Amino acid sequence: MSSTLACAPEAACQPSLTDKPRAVLIDLAGVLHVGDQAIPGAVAALERLRASGIPIRFLTNTTRSPRAALVSLLQGLGFVIAAEEIQTAVRAAAQRVHQLGLKPHYLVHPDVQDELGPSHAQPDAVVLGDAGPYFTFDALNQVFRLLMAGLPLIAMARNRYFQEPEGLTIDLGAFVAALEYASGVEADVVGKPAPAFFLGALAELAVAPHEAVLIGDDLRDDIGGAQAVQIPGILVRTGKFRPADEQQTGIRPALIVDDFAAAVDHLLRRR
Amino acid sequence: MSSTLACAPEAACQPSLTDKPRAVLIDLAGVLHVGDQAIPGAVAALERLRASGIPIRFLTNTTRSPRAALVSLLQGLGFVIAAEEIQTAVRAAAQRVHQLGLKPHYLVHPDVQDELGPSHAQPDAVVLGDAGPYFTFDALNQVFRLLMAGLPLIAMARNRYFQEPEGLTIDLGAFVAALEYASGVEADVVGKPAPAFFLGALAELAVAPHEAVLIGDDLRDDIGGAQAVQIPGILVRTGKFRPADEQQTGIRPALIVDDFAAAVDHLLRRR
Repeated sequence: MSSTLACAPEAACQPSLTDKPRAVLIDLAGVLHVGDQAIPGAVAALERLRASGIPIRFLTNTTRSPRAALVSLLQGLGFVIAAEEIQTAVRAAAQRVHQLGLKPHYLVHPDVQDELGPSHAQPDAVVLGDAGPYFTFDALNQVFRLLMAGLPLIAMARNRYFQEPEGLTIDLGAFVAALEYASGVEADVVGKPAPAFFLGALAELAVAPHEAVLIGDDLRDDIGGAQAVQIPGILVRTGKFRPADEQQTGIRPALIVDDFAAAVDHLLRRR
Repeated sequence: MSSTLACAPEAACQPSLTDKPRAVLIDLAGVLHVGDQAIPGAVAALERLRASGIPIRFLTNTTRSPRAALVSLLQGLGFVIAAEEIQTAVRAAAQRVHQLGLKPHYLVHPDVQDELGPSHAQPDAVVLGDAGPYFTFDALNQVFRLLMAGLPLIAMARNRYFQEPEGLTIDLGAFVAALEYASGVEADVVGKPAPAFFLGALAELAVAPHEAVLIGDDLRDDIGGAQAVQIPGILVRTGKFRPADEQQTGIRPALIVDDFAAAVDHLLRRR
């Protein structure tokens, strides 16, 4: 479990890592922290990465907390991080709503409602975030009926689960699957693994996908999503990582390492 | 909308109706009643069918109520019906648990818990019924963690939705889909459309599938399930029936009629 594990050449681990990445995209939960605990070595590793001068963006499908709260949590754990560096699925949803001029009904966590505004009384779309304990039967049934009436569904993510200090926890994707199954409506996912979510972050930095690298703990939504648009992915064995993931998904990361510190060390060694 | 609509010969509506059915399988919710309202004409139609002497079994995926409550509801609406004639998905789950000697954790409606017994503290399986408002985030997350620990999932049904007086309501299948998606575990469904659910009812009556007929309002789980085991299905345009169902599923019922009374009249005319 300790050494870095580069894919064998025959294992089709495309895209391969560039020697001098021009941008690093970093997942937050499970990579830098789990709940209110920093991953060991991650604070110092982020400092080393920043010292190298490589531009950084943080990508998160966490949709239970507003961006300001994420920044506050991370800063409290010792990470040097600014709000502008974080791209959240909540903001991606707000942008989609604005672009399309929609008047949504929101089923989201109350903590992110301020970033989105209130639900409209006569909605023309449904926007779904990770409402956590606010995913009640009545709230889901209300959304179901809107979908059966023909409204489109925008989902911030379709992650299966995430790591909390007390164990794996069911994530937004389960409720997206529930509503899709019952209504027959397919969700428009705006967070990871949507191509636009990764490519938008790189466009801000004017970096091409193959010149960048993503570090994440979610084989499907981080690594699979990034590699689908030719951004090589480094999988860390922290957070939600489970050894069986690779066999179950068929997704081969460009690199697998123990944790964020090992990923940073690898990137800096290659330069 | 008023006339019976026999499938055209080229439309592959197999299996076709027998002229003298030897058994009639009848779905309950949406066919005989919606909530606490009888479907108009259904009480008298059931009396006509009983007068013909054809053996009858009622099949229901309703898992929010115990069988005794269903009988009481139906008798209160004027239907002549006995508990022994009703095969429920709750009982099918209890039989499966007994057959396999399992010690399940149950996530079911409290009203059916008595039919199943209490959850075990050290479970070796999960049994899921339509818990309705008891599908809380915490209850779903608890089941999710059991599935991630390797326990198998027995689901009473995977219906998408059902008709309530105030509108379509999200059904058990949505929560099965949610848990399957998050955990990667595939549910063993014991109610409709499981072949054993239909064939078990016919075995009790010693009637072959092609000699029977099923009357239901759910194109996928009633008609699709029955016809998959060569029981011709009559779809009624009551309950959850929606005109678009047929195009979306590709399932062609042997016959489509307005309601249960029309289905009975058709069967009795053919004799």
